[in-house]
Amino acid sequence: MVPINDADRDDVLGANRRFYDAFESQNIDAMSEIWEHSDRVVCNHPGWARLRGWPAVAASWFAIFQSGQRLQFVLTDEDAVVIGDAAWVTIDENLIDGNVQGTVSAVNIFTRVDEAWKLVAHLGTSVMPTAGLGT
Amino acid sequence: MVPINDADRDDVLGANRRFYDAFESQNIDAMSEIWEHSDRVVCNHPGWARLRGWPAVAASWFAIFQSGQRLQFVLTDEDAVVIGDAAWVTIDENLIDGNVQGTVSAVNIFTRVDEAWKLVAHLGTSVMPTAGLGT
Repeated sequence: MVPINDADRDDVLGANRRFYDAFESQNIDAMSEIWEHSDRVVCNHPGWARLRGWPAVAASWFAIFQSGQRLQFVLTDEDAVVIGDAAWVTIDENLIDGNVQGTVSAVNIFTRVDEAWKLVAHLGTSVMPTAGLGT
Repeated sequence: MVPINDADRDDVLGANRRFYDAFESQNIDAMSEIWEHSDRVVCNHPGWARLRGWPAVAASWFAIFQSGQRLQFVLTDEDAVVIGDAAWVTIDENLIDGNVQGTVSAVNIFTRVDEAWKLVAHLGTSVMPTAGLGT
């Protein structure tokens, strides 16, 4: 494995944090800024079929933000791996909204383009805290 | 974006296929061979909490293979992106076992070490084919 570059790792974690800030604040411009606008982006909201390409992914964020349901998270078990111009963050999104509770375990993949880390894949899956082995 | 290197992409898709071959055949040695044996590997089986590190991930495959439930898949909507020595495959695992049906939407992240692509992250989420927008 290559040595960890802490500056790169911090940059990726910053981009990841901006993703959740945009999500929580329902800021569609900020959400648009964080994603790469390309055909290769993918997004799996928990339980949804995969969305491919920026138009479909953007439409999903519009729909979520317009639904009126405001989600807030406590983010835990965060880790980032950087390999050259690719990186991914694994994280647990612990929902604390009054009506919606639970944990979504997610992976967010970023690529570096012109010094900026852009989100190219988000996949979240609802998990039961006590499910599985080793938990 | 950098140009797509078809040879790299084919290599990644080959490694991804070996992952599912090992899964279907319940071959623990082949499954062990495909994964990077490191602390940074992560695995989310659908509905399970995240497992971190090769020992926990390996234990989960032992448990799954010893459960006696043999899973078979039809793999669809496959795509691979390669960025330097990192790559990821997005894919739908359509279960065709008699007792277990449904679709798991997955992302598999690989890194190239000494010319071999090793799996470092697998995250699968159960999806309803009609759920979400744009489906």
